[in-house]
Amino acid sequence: MPLERRPRLTPPIADVRRAVRSVLGPRDDGPLALVALSGGPDSLALAAAAAFEGPRGGWRVGAIVVDHGLQPGSAEQADAAASVARDLGLGPVLVERVDAGAAPGGAGPEGAARAARYAALEAAARTTGAEVVLLGHTLDDQAETVLLGLARGSGSASLGGMAVRSGRYARPLLGIRRATTRQACLDAGLAPWDDPHNVDSAYARVRVRQQVLPVLEAELGPGVAEALARTAEQLREDEQAFADQIDEFIEEICEPAEAGIAMSAAALAANPAALRQRIIRHVVDSEFGVSLSRAQTLEVARLVTDWHGQGPIDLPRGIRATRAGGHVVLSTTGSTAVLPHDHQRPA
Amino acid sequence: MPLERRPRLTPPIADVRRAVRSVLGPRDDGPLALVALSGGPDSLALAAAAAFEGPRGGWRVGAIVVDHGLQPGSAEQADAAASVARDLGLGPVLVERVDAGAAPGGAGPEGAARAARYAALEAAARTTGAEVVLLGHTLDDQAETVLLGLARGSGSASLGGMAVRSGRYARPLLGIRRATTRQACLDAGLAPWDDPHNVDSAYARVRVRQQVLPVLEAELGPGVAEALARTAEQLREDEQAFADQIDEFIEEICEPAEAGIAMSAAALAANPAALRQRIIRHVVDSEFGVSLSRAQTLEVARLVTDWHGQGPIDLPRGIRATRAGGHVVLSTTGSTAVLPHDHQRPA
Repeated sequence: MPLERRPRLTPPIADVRRAVRSVLGPRDDGPLALVALSGGPDSLALAAAAAFEGPRGGWRVGAIVVDHGLQPGSAEQADAAASVARDLGLGPVLVERVDAGAAPGGAGPEGAARAARYAALEAAARTTGAEVVLLGHTLDDQAETVLLGLARGSGSASLGGMAVRSGRYARPLLGIRRATTRQACLDAGLAPWDDPHNVDSAYARVRVRQQVLPVLEAELGPGVAEALARTAEQLREDEQAFADQIDEFIEEICEPAEAGIAMSAAALAANPAALRQRIIRHVVDSEFGVSLSRAQTLEVARLVTDWHGQGPIDLPRGIRATRAGGHVVLSTTGSTAVLPHDHQRPA
Repeated sequence: MPLERRPRLTPPIADVRRAVRSVLGPRDDGPLALVALSGGPDSLALAAAAAFEGPRGGWRVGAIVVDHGLQPGSAEQADAAASVARDLGLGPVLVERVDAGAAPGGAGPEGAARAARYAALEAAARTTGAEVVLLGHTLDDQAETVLLGLARGSGSASLGGMAVRSGRYARPLLGIRRATTRQACLDAGLAPWDDPHNVDSAYARVRVRQQVLPVLEAELGPGVAEALARTAEQLREDEQAFADQIDEFIEEICEPAEAGIAMSAAALAANPAALRQRIIRHVVDSEFGVSLSRAQTLEVARLVTDWHGQGPIDLPRGIRATRAGGHVVLSTTGSTAVLPHDHQRPA
C-alpha cells in the first residue's frame, strides 16, 4: 500500500474502527468476513476499517460489490469500488451483477432491489465460505427504518428496525452517524461514490431522509435520530423477550385440530394482552403463513376476552377462527370447527 | 332545550356518541361524570355526546372549565363555555381559575399549564364526588404525543402515549380524529372556540401538529396518525405485560441492604434484557425516586451481563451501583457496599 494511503488516526476513523472491532474480535482460525461494498461513504468507511481491524483480530477480509444495473455506468462504478477494495488490501473481492426486476414478490422497486441484493450476498457468502457479511447501515439508516415502520405498522415489531446481528449479517455501524462515515472516508483520502438513488425521491426512504428527519430535528430539537435508534434497540429487546416467552409455553397452549390448530382459551385468557395477541399472530403465521393485522388479531382475541357466543371470524386466505368449547380453533375448512378431543373419539 | 339545538344524527355525532357510550355504560346508582371542557371542538363534541348518552346510561353529567388566565378574555371564554355546558343540560358546571405560573416543577410552559389543569380537575372531582373525569383527547392528540415521545426518549415507556383509562380519567375519543369532533360540533350547531395556544408555535406539540405530522402524511402517505395511535396502544400493552411480570417476582429478586437495596445477580442474569433493564429502572425509581437513562441502566446491567471486576457505577443523586458477590447493590452511601447477609450477622 503506498504511503500516502495510510490515514492519520482521526476521531471519525477511530470511531468506525472501534465499531468494527466489536464484530471482528480475536480469532485464531482465520475466518473470512465479507464487506458488502457499494462504494458509498458508509460501506467504504466500513471496508477501510475492516481492512485495518480484520488482520489484527485474525480475520481475513474480502468484499462483495453488488451491481444492480439500474443506471448507466453502474458496471464501471462497481468495478471502481472493487478496485478500491483491492487497494485497501481486501480479498477475495467479488462483483455480482443482479437483475432487480427478476426479484420475487411485489414489494416495489426498493423491495425488489433489496431482495436481489441479499440473494447476491447470500450466494457470495456461500461461495467464499464467509462467516460474516458486514453491512454498512448507520444510525441514520436505523432512524429512517424506524420512521418508515412507524408510518406502516403497529408496535414494536415494525419499530424494531435492523439488528446489529442477524444470522451471518452484522451491522457494526448502527451506532455511528452517517456524517462520521463520510468524514472517516475523507480523512482516509478515500473518495466515496454518491449513489443517485440516494437522492431519488421516488423512494420512501429518501423522502424520510430528505424531508421527514430534517423537519423532526428542526421542530423537536437535535438528537431525534439518536432517540429513534435507542427506541429501535429497546423495542427489539422487548420483542425478543416476548418471543422467548412464547417459545416457552406455546406447546402447552396449542394442539392439532382438524385442518388446523386449537389454542386453549383458558391459557390465552391467563396471559396479558401483549402476549395473548402475539401468541395468536404467531400461531396463525407459523401454521398458515399469514400475518394478521392488529384489528384482525384483536377480533380473534375477543373470542376469549369478550366471549358472548359470537360466530366464526373469517381471516385472510380462507382461515377461520372459531370458539369451540374451551378452545379457539383456527382452521382452513369452511365447515364447523372440530374440537381437538374429537380426534380421540373411539372408532 | 330549544328545538333547534336538537342535532340530526350525522355520522360524526354518532361516532362521538358511540365512543362516549363505551365509558358511560349502564348504571343504576346515578354516578357523576365531569367533562373537562375548554370549549374547543374536541371537548365541546365530548360534552354534547356525554349530555346525550349520560342520562341514557344512568349517569349524571357535569362539566369543569379551567381558565388558565393566559390571554386577555380567557375568563369570558371560560364563562361562555360554561354557559354552553348548561345549555346542553349539564350540571354541575364549575369554572376554575388557575395560575399556571404557580405550578410546581420546571417543566416549561406546557408542563406548568398541564400540572395546573390536572390539579384543578382533581379538586373539582373531589368537590363534586365525580367518579369519572372525561377528557377530550383525540387520535390526533395521541399521534402527537407519540411523536413527542419519540423525539424525547426511548422505547415503549415514552411511546405509549395516553391511556384510554387512567384512574378517574377517561379519554373516550382516543380513537376519533379531530376532524370528526369538529364536524360533530358543526352538525350539532355548536360553535367551537379555537384556543390561540393551539396555533402558537412556541409549543412543541403545536409544531408537531402543524409541521411534523403534515410532512409525515405527505411523504409517507395518509394513515400515519392512525398508525401512531395503534403503535401507542400496542406499546402500552407491552409495558403493562412487563409491569405485571416485574410485580410477580420483584420480591424474590430484591432484599434490603445498608442504605439501599440488593438485587440478585443470578435472577437478573436469568431474565431477558428487556426485563432485566426494566427491573433495574424500577428498583432505582421506587427506592430512590430517580429515573435512569438507557445508558445508565445498561451500565448497571453490565455488572451482571459483562462482569469483569469493574468498579462501582455512580448514578444521579449520589446513588451508587456496586457488584458485591452474588448481588448488585444500590446504595446512597459513598462507602463500600454492604452485603445483605451482613444484616444477619450475630451481634
